[in-house]
Amino acid sequence: MGNCQDICKTFWCRPKNTNVRISLPAVCFVWQIVMIILFGVFVRYNPEADAHWPEFMQKHNITSNIENDFYYRYPSFQDVHVMIFVGFGFLMTFLKRYSFGGVGFNFLIAAFGVQWALLMQGWFHSLDPTDGTIKIGVESLINADFCVAGCLIAFGACLGKVSPVQLMVMTLFGITLYSVEEYIILNILNARDAGGSMVIHIFGAYYGLTISWILYRPNLHQSHRLQGSHYHTDVFAMIGTLFLWMYWPSFNSAIAYHGDGQHRAAINTYLSLTASVLTTFAVSSLSAKRGKLDMVHIQNATLAGGVAMGTAAEFMITPYGALIVGFCCGIISTFGYVVLTPFMEKYLKIQDTCGIHNLHAMPGLLGGVVGAITAAAASTSIYGQQGLLNTFGFVGELSNRSPGTQGGYQAAGICVALAFGIVGGILVGCILRLPIWADPADDNCFDDEVYWELPEDEESIPPILEYNNHMITKNPETCM
Amino acid sequence: MGNCQDICKTFWCRPKNTNVRISLPAVCFVWQIVMIILFGVFVRYNPEADAHWPEFMQKHNITSNIENDFYYRYPSFQDVHVMIFVGFGFLMTFLKRYSFGGVGFNFLIAAFGVQWALLMQGWFHSLDPTDGTIKIGVESLINADFCVAGCLIAFGACLGKVSPVQLMVMTLFGITLYSVEEYIILNILNARDAGGSMVIHIFGAYYGLTISWILYRPNLHQSHRLQGSHYHTDVFAMIGTLFLWMYWPSFNSAIAYHGDGQHRAAINTYLSLTASVLTTFAVSSLSAKRGKLDMVHIQNATLAGGVAMGTAAEFMITPYGALIVGFCCGIISTFGYVVLTPFMEKYLKIQDTCGIHNLHAMPGLLGGVVGAITAAAASTSIYGQQGLLNTFGFVGELSNRSPGTQGGYQAAGICVALAFGIVGGILVGCILRLPIWADPADDNCFDDEVYWELPEDEESIPPILEYNNHMITKNPETCM
Amino acid sequence: MGNCQDICKTFWCRPKNTNVRISLPAVCFVWQIVMIILFGVFVRYNPEADAHWPEFMQKHNITSNIENDFYYRYPSFQDVHVMIFVGFGFLMTFLKRYSFGGVGFNFLIAAFGVQWALLMQGWFHSLDPTDGTIKIGVESLINADFCVAGCLIAFGACLGKVSPVQLMVMTLFGITLYSVEEYIILNILNARDAGGSMVIHIFGAYYGLTISWILYRPNLHQSHRLQGSHYHTDVFAMIGTLFLWMYWPSFNSAIAYHGDGQHRAAINTYLSLTASVLTTFAVSSLSAKRGKLDMVHIQNATLAGGVAMGTAAEFMITPYGALIVGFCCGIISTFGYVVLTPFMEKYLKIQDTCGIHNLHAMPGLLGGVVGAITAAAASTSIYGQQGLLNTFGFVGELSNRSPGTQGGYQAAGICVALAFGIVGGILVGCILRLPIWADPADDNCFDDEVYWELPEDEESIPPILEYNNHMITKNPETCM
Repeated sequence: MGNCQDICKTFWCRPKNTNVRISLPAVCFVWQIVMIILFGVFVRYNPEADAHWPEFMQKHNITSNIENDFYYRYPSFQDVHVMIFVGFGFLMTFLKRYSFGGVGFNFLIAAFGVQWALLMQGWFHSLDPTDGTIKIGVESLINADFCVAGCLIAFGACLGKVSPVQLMVMTLFGITLYSVEEYIILNILNARDAGGSMVIHIFGAYYGLTISWILYRPNLHQSHRLQGSHYHTDVFAMIGTLFLWMYWPSFNSAIAYHGDGQHRAAINTYLSLTASVLTTFAVSSLSAKRGKLDMVHIQNATLAGGVAMGTAAEFMITPYGALIVGFCCGIISTFGYVVLTPFMEKYLKIQDTCGIHNLHAMPGLLGGVVGAITAAAASTSIYGQQGLLNTFGFVGELSNRSPGTQGGYQAAGICVALAFGIVGGILVGCILRLPIWADPADDNCFDDEVYWELPEDEESIPPILEYNNHMITKNPETCM
Repeated sequence: MGNCQDICKTFWCRPKNTNVRISLPAVCFVWQIVMIILFGVFVRYNPEADAHWPEFMQKHNITSNIENDFYYRYPSFQDVHVMIFVGFGFLMTFLKRYSFGGVGFNFLIAAFGVQWALLMQGWFHSLDPTDGTIKIGVESLINADFCVAGCLIAFGACLGKVSPVQLMVMTLFGITLYSVEEYIILNILNARDAGGSMVIHIFGAYYGLTISWILYRPNLHQSHRLQGSHYHTDVFAMIGTLFLWMYWPSFNSAIAYHGDGQHRAAINTYLSLTASVLTTFAVSSLSAKRGKLDMVHIQNATLAGGVAMGTAAEFMITPYGALIVGFCCGIISTFGYVVLTPFMEKYLKIQDTCGIHNLHAMPGLLGGVVGAITAAAASTSIYGQQGLLNTFGFVGELSNRSPGTQGGYQAAGICVALAFGIVGGILVGCILRLPIWADPADDNCFDDEVYWELPEDEESIPPILEYNNHMITKNPETCM
Repeated sequence: MGNCQDICKTFWCRPKNTNVRISLPAVCFVWQIVMIILFGVFVRYNPEADAHWPEFMQKHNITSNIENDFYYRYPSFQDVHVMIFVGFGFLMTFLKRYSFGGVGFNFLIAAFGVQWALLMQGWFHSLDPTDGTIKIGVESLINADFCVAGCLIAFGACLGKVSPVQLMVMTLFGITLYSVEEYIILNILNARDAGGSMVIHIFGAYYGLTISWILYRPNLHQSHRLQGSHYHTDVFAMIGTLFLWMYWPSFNSAIAYHGDGQHRAAINTYLSLTASVLTTFAVSSLSAKRGKLDMVHIQNATLAGGVAMGTAAEFMITPYGALIVGFCCGIISTFGYVVLTPFMEKYLKIQDTCGIHNLHAMPGLLGGVVGAITAAAASTSIYGQQGLLNTFGFVGELSNRSPGTQGGYQAAGICVALAFGIVGGILVGCILRLPIWADPADDNCFDDEVYWELPEDEESIPPILEYNNHMITKNPETCM
């Protein structure tokens, strides 16, 4: 018994404090109050959501309410909204004992994130110079959801290993970095990225991976018993996968140009996604004994086609071009799960719970490159005079930019996203290493027990300690 | 053995008849046939759904099919539809052994309710004076879904304690009362209530709570073993929560004024909901040992922000006003779950299975008050001339009503909704106490076994009898 | 031990090869590459999705982007998309040990199917004569989803008994047959079938049933232990049911005529579905001891009202007509589950895992007949001059066709769909009997173990061998 207690002191029952009773409510209350104050100072409805809209219509010769942007974008907005909350949320329920944390923390940080994103993006993009306020409308809500998507991707790398307070901090900084990066890529470089291959996926993935690298846990194997899935949690995760997969065409087309832009973006994304499903099944089957399929691949790599079409979806990439992109992505992403994830954990010390490197980083990079090439290959004969202007925004001081130059700027966007992700991740990672955040111990990772009241009759899965080649099952009563 | 049988006779195996083989089919068939007859007599397509639409367009100078109300409202209708069937349905799957009943009975009564609602609301709102028929279109379908929402809220208070036949009766009367109450509030008082804080939530909640009070079961603790959740049923319930949460902006904006009205209602609701998520997490963490979060709070109180914006969503409440409302609601609602629900069960004899008092009654009241204040504060400078007319319907004989007066009528609407809920609940509760409805015994509540064929290999959770301070596990073979 | 091994050799461990490591990847890769090549040769964007759209607008006097078909049809498309992937997918998760296969293989074959459908339907319907290419837009995507629906219905009859490679083959031929059949019914006969009672449901159901009949497994009872559901998988299946049920109005209205056509189709389907819910609950309760409801009925027969409105939804069938159709369908379909499915398995040697005969075949036939009658009863007074032309397409060389004649052609459509389903099913069934497809053994049916890596800690349900009236539990270690 004494021996056990010694072990416990050293390895197990070390006084890792996971009590968030003060810190979590404090962060939530303070930040929400700050949001209210900032919204009070800065945020107003844009003309299409303001009660003065009838006068606005008259002034701008708008003849029908149906021309309100609400009717162009609201259905897409709701699809994106479902992706953020149900898609990402349920995708992260796959762990057998972290389903509450997956879907619950996703809910918390997304709900906080959109508020902060409305402000940050508003300051950069829609500050009204006449009165210094931010004017929001349905397009702002979509952009806020996009911004949050970047942070949820980063969450995927850290799933199960951080406290909710850490997640809130990660989101606060993530949204901030995202908004600056987005401003540089979209407004300064005038790169196009309607579905965010660069802005969302590259940034989010490298932000998360870098944080995970800095928070490396050498003894994470102590939670090994909880790292797998349960038959039913795998089915729950498929809810997330399918809603992401089905609505991705809406994601990539949500803020594309009205008319043909949205139409084409949806078609391209749809095609790319179908191709990545087939290659994912193929590679998954190829890489296992007796050709058995792996649910992790199906849940994730099938989505790679959507990630990789983020930049080029609104371009004239042609239907077969979209299929080729999806084809490649499904292969790359599934191979990532088979080969790269274990490699990265072992040799690079990057523990990537959801495999975001395979689903977001690599397909995002591919998507950025595809976008640059497609942009560089654009021409008036393919797009038409007006189509070229609409698609690439060659107006005003950009009216002399050639498609080739545009391709270069697109490529520059990739680098900016990468740089923000990695540098931002190092910065935030170091902040999150401070010993004040109530993160779980190595043997408590992936366990809802730590932050959630669990249903009483659930038998908890007993933790197992490896010590001197003995397997010692922890007895919570004798230990401590 | 003899002793056991005596116990059984007294407490357990009392001849409570839960056989619904005659009553349920009879009710379903008879009511459906009545519906068909009434629809045959009364219900026709409105001009926008009738094949004479091309002539109607010509007559009214409508130049494009896109002006058909279908394209304004159908996406919102589908979101509301998802809330009714998946949202409410899955929210009620949280009980470990009543998931079938939660989602299944919700399905049954909603499908019946919409038919009866189309008729009731039609008689009050869209009776064509020229031929005495009801003309239905997509807006009628949305209103029918709204009407059913009131009854599903009431269902939440009674979940697990009533038979499907009782639910059908409750729905029949609930829809009837709702339609009258709605007519008084919206048409006679001309109160505005686009998302139904008063009409739907206050009415539905007090209707359900009063019924639950009249059907009070002093020995409900005999089903205590079944009153909790299972790890996976809590995740199922999150499906309901999230679809309600995401689509609530569509709910509150579905029948708002075309253009800016719908646009603004969606934005306000979205913001209010995000704030209530943060305060729910905060209070939930504050109120538990070690700051552990409670799934019941997350599943329910996060939605309070949508309930409370039901009236004011289409008003110019400003974005920060919406955040403040959500902020308060999340706190009130979560405290309700922590403090009020146990208090009400113990001292007021109200057993509220889903805690609808916290999610619908209190936030609904707050929403009604917020709506009254916001309406009273309206002015031409804030809304514009036309905007004020559109938003509050100050036309015809109301053209002289001032915003201040409107505020008073809004407040009167709260009282009407309350009165209908309580008086209607007493009436219907008394009907439901008649011993003919095949409701379950106290020790059989929250158990799908009673009304559903369960999968064979499911080991049933053995019921436990408290008797003379002994815990006696029922043996189904020796008993009876 | 020796005895056991003998038994094994004979009955159990017979060398049924279920290894798909070569065949599945090969099929996926080859077919995807063929798709890319064919898309490269044939598929282009239609004018509404092409960057030349601004010029197209000018040429055709289109004044607003909102007139792009994208805004008419995209919300409906997304609803249909959800039905295909989440609706069908989760409906098929009900088996206790085949949830991965249900939702996973559905995903695979639907993703392949839509690609092949875009090509096949394109060749028949939207081949541009000027350059020999297929022009795709959002309506093409909806049609591709419809086409796939037919194959997924057929999958329902074979669920759990075929290999993924067989499913791919079944889909390839199914899509091909569907496209020809659809061309004959819609273009040659000019029958109307917006929601596909004939084209989708009759064809798909008889295609699947015939295949299942040819692949009859006399010893399927050896997998009896896996043929039931689990409490939680039944709840998963309700996700599928509800999304199918809610979005069916979008399905039947997705490609109906703009304006009143879409509007009316949605209303009719909605009403029909509500009626079939009530009669399903009634008959389910009537047919069981103590009136207990059966989840299989609720999951399936409630949808029959949507199937049966597939043809007549866009006609002026009147609201009460829609209710009557739903009323009848719910009864027929539920009786089918109670009576016909066991009868068909025992006497007709058709093993129909999901009961598609009850959900798709019978209601589809009813829907075809209802459609023919409603069409024959059409008149100018009911539809208006223009309405009649729009609804039935009486233009060009059909301008002299009378509604009565149209009714006859509708009835002819039923026969064509039936013939294609049965003859095609025989053909494809024979191909699938070849012993090269890695299908599971009779005692391995309905088991994810065969084609999926399962979570480690899942205790597998031990198979039971019936031999000489002894029940011998297989011990995987001693056996082989």
